[in-house]
Amino acid sequence: MNDAYARLKDRFARIATIGECSAMLGWDASAMMPPGGGAARGEQLAVLAGVSHAMLVAPEVAEDLSAAAAEGPWDEANLALMRRAHRRATAMSADLVEAMERANSACEKVWREARPQSNFAAVRPWLEDVVRLQREMASALASATGLSPYDALMDAYQPGIAAADVEPVFAAYESFLKEALPRAEAIQAARPAPLQPQGPFPTEVQRALGRRLSERAGLDYEHARLDESAHPFCGGTPTDVRLTTRYTPDAFGQALLGILHETGHALYERGLPAPYARQPVGEAAGMAAHESQSLIIEMQAARSDAFLTWLGPELHAAFGGDAAAYSGANLGRLWRRVERGFIRTEADEITYPAHVILRFRLERALIAGDLSVADLPGAWAEGLHALLGITPPDDRRGCLQDIHWYDGNFGYFPSYTLGAMAAAQLMQAARAALPGMDGALGQGDFTPLLGWLRTSVHGKGSLLGFQDLMTAATGRPLDPSDFMDHLRARYLS
Amino acid sequence: MNDAYARLKDRFARIATIGECSAMLGWDASAMMPPGGGAARGEQLAVLAGVSHAMLVAPEVAEDLSAAAAEGPWDEANLALMRRAHRRATAMSADLVEAMERANSACEKVWREARPQSNFAAVRPWLEDVVRLQREMASALASATGLSPYDALMDAYQPGIAAADVEPVFAAYESFLKEALPRAEAIQAARPAPLQPQGPFPTEVQRALGRRLSERAGLDYEHARLDESAHPFCGGTPTDVRLTTRYTPDAFGQALLGILHETGHALYERGLPAPYARQPVGEAAGMAAHESQSLIIEMQAARSDAFLTWLGPELHAAFGGDAAAYSGANLGRLWRRVERGFIRTEADEITYPAHVILRFRLERALIAGDLSVADLPGAWAEGLHALLGITPPDDRRGCLQDIHWYDGNFGYFPSYTLGAMAAAQLMQAARAALPGMDGALGQGDFTPLLGWLRTSVHGKGSLLGFQDLMTAATGRPLDPSDFMDHLRARYLS
Repeated sequence: MNDAYARLKDRFARIATIGECSAMLGWDASAMMPPGGGAARGEQLAVLAGVSHAMLVAPEVAEDLSAAAAEGPWDEANLALMRRAHRRATAMSADLVEAMERANSACEKVWREARPQSNFAAVRPWLEDVVRLQREMASALASATGLSPYDALMDAYQPGIAAADVEPVFAAYESFLKEALPRAEAIQAARPAPLQPQGPFPTEVQRALGRRLSERAGLDYEHARLDESAHPFCGGTPTDVRLTTRYTPDAFGQALLGILHETGHALYERGLPAPYARQPVGEAAGMAAHESQSLIIEMQAARSDAFLTWLGPELHAAFGGDAAAYSGANLGRLWRRVERGFIRTEADEITYPAHVILRFRLERALIAGDLSVADLPGAWAEGLHALLGITPPDDRRGCLQDIHWYDGNFGYFPSYTLGAMAAAQLMQAARAALPGMDGALGQGDFTPLLGWLRTSVHGKGSLLGFQDLMTAATGRPLDPSDFMDHLRARYLS
Repeated sequence: MNDAYARLKDRFARIATIGECSAMLGWDASAMMPPGGGAARGEQLAVLAGVSHAMLVAPEVAEDLSAAAAEGPWDEANLALMRRAHRRATAMSADLVEAMERANSACEKVWREARPQSNFAAVRPWLEDVVRLQREMASALASATGLSPYDALMDAYQPGIAAADVEPVFAAYESFLKEALPRAEAIQAARPAPLQPQGPFPTEVQRALGRRLSERAGLDYEHARLDESAHPFCGGTPTDVRLTTRYTPDAFGQALLGILHETGHALYERGLPAPYARQPVGEAAGMAAHESQSLIIEMQAARSDAFLTWLGPELHAAFGGDAAAYSGANLGRLWRRVERGFIRTEADEITYPAHVILRFRLERALIAGDLSVADLPGAWAEGLHALLGITPPDDRRGCLQDIHWYDGNFGYFPSYTLGAMAAAQLMQAARAALPGMDGALGQGDFTPLLGWLRTSVHGKGSLLGFQDLMTAATGRPLDPSDFMDHLRARYLS
């Protein structure tokens, strides 16, 4: 390790530490902050983003990057990721970075009021500001990276994956959906309707159970918290992960499965390679990789027949009532129900990708300048109808439902479906490698699966790109066929 | 306003914004963070302190300070405070600043374990590290400011107040105490013992009541939160204040009066002059001024006969039981009870200054090098015995009880007693200016008092030094005689 590389490691550690501060303040803004703190919080995040950006684009970084030499795969990958981060950061002025932070914070704040009122007009000028700055950023990044503007945005979330990679996968899925969705609906309609467990389901009981389930999945609360927020997420840092969920006393599925979903994210952060903490190579391998980890826990493991059979009696012991409603088979019918709906976060596994495909197309058009913010509600309604044959009755259940765009995240959405596909592929590989895995899940035991994920995914950090990570773990780059096979097995047989 | 001053205002606003981030992360560490997050949090605060320090000592600041010109009392005071901050910051190297942050975080963490175990030996090496760095800082600040090393530390908490100002005040109080304490005890012994309200006092009821009382005192929860921590405090920022308290189900006084105490701090922050937000002149006028605001609410207003007469029925309605235990007179006997005890935060108004005088002497000796950390437990026991005639049975109730030193705050303690004295003096002035003030408190109405404090103290920010602030508000600089008069009236008549 030469001096230039040592200096870079120190600098990137400091930049990552500032990122940790922002992550904590972001969690606080969603889970704790009183409404009156919003304006100051926006400034705080903007200043931290500016400081971090300045540290990344300082003249001595370019000099050190020229002179740096690293040995061995981890440090070589780390240096390459430093170069990538520097290239992206120098493409943007400090003014643009801070302006975006401010615009995003301001828009998100207005959106929080506008969404429940279904008032797109109220947030539209703020979103126009966000889109304008995103387009400016995309264009600056495109010049610096040689990517198209939208690909340059996508690359921030899942490095190395471009729209051209996603399009054929999404086209294939759209064809699959046209045939599979009516068939799944018909099969479901021919079966008895699931029994509805009878509430109330006290929040305190849900919270304690959610915590216990996440502990069974492998989460250690010496390094974690579980709280509530309107839009559940996993934030914080690798040694202090912050999960949130949402409780309603008349149902428990959303909160508990939501906790398991966020637990999947949290386990990834907790399992990142500690010797490379705060270095680019020690970070998660992108958002599609991250989503694969939440979905392998929530969708692949927790909704499996084996796990539901174990979970049922646990739920029954916690909530009481009719035991038949808590049989594994009934929970499967409840939690694997296919339904064409308006809300992405409530969608089943089959229709979920349709929501993502819609957003992918719309955000691409917004960034390209082919769609104006004013036309977004109409384009949303048309697009959803084309994909699922339904039209949202209002914008609350349409283009106002997700925080992403209002918080300045364009290019993120494809990661959800790439992650779902990766989760199916990784689960298939884990099952092949671990003959006892499903048996363990049937005992409520995630240990074999988690061990395999620790070795095959979490502990790798960003050593490999997404496709190389998939190849190392499963023998192939991302291939949607495992996901379709999974859906066929679960919904069409 | 010339360009240089405009640039300085912008820079100081950014520095203050980074301070807000640190304040929020500090609150989180005490009120929310899981234990495993401690090490990373220490790094986060250290990096922010380093960034902030670097922004303050950058070469262009010295240039701008030479060239800056400001007009009008507020901007003139602001520029003078900028020069003061720069002088203090340039006295310290970035390495020292970060080393202190790390040592303080590490020591505080060990102290959190050592205190309940009464294990001074466990934390001693960490405290030695903290003291060593504090002495290094004190010496560097002394060279830059012309103050003595200990005065240079005090000056960070209450600018313009030195040990030489405190010594005669404390000596006068020690004389007063020698005579007043036995008399107060004799008077108390001759009265009937207070009735003890019978619990349990559910935490939920205490929390709701505490919140309602702080609202009556003028706090707006659009800009505030109330949580729990082992060591109650008021943190956060002027638009997002974070209060904490501690609940025990077998008593309610500590939690409720603690909330009112922190509310006093919070109201000060909320009332600072918004046009100078994030500027030095827009900050509170030091820690003695701050403590005067918590104590004017907790000790002067909330423990007054007038307010207790209103509060009694409110408490009885919340907790039930024997109404006689909630009469104003009985609450007065309960909450104005004089008792020689070991714990500063549980001390009554008469003995509290003795705890402060002890710490003032010990920390001065530690900084001067006249006392070693190893000898601290013994010196503590001796010193407490000389002041109050009692000896702590263990270090948990001795030198381990307060967080301050273990978190690197030396020179802070005198502010508590200066604040108590200032509170009495301000209350006397408010009473003279507002003939209806006590009548309003008797209706649970803080509005007149708060209005006077907003104008006379909060809204002044740091426009005036502490003594000038007292003179403007009361006609005199700090004068302990109002405090002694208050104690005579409350305890000796």
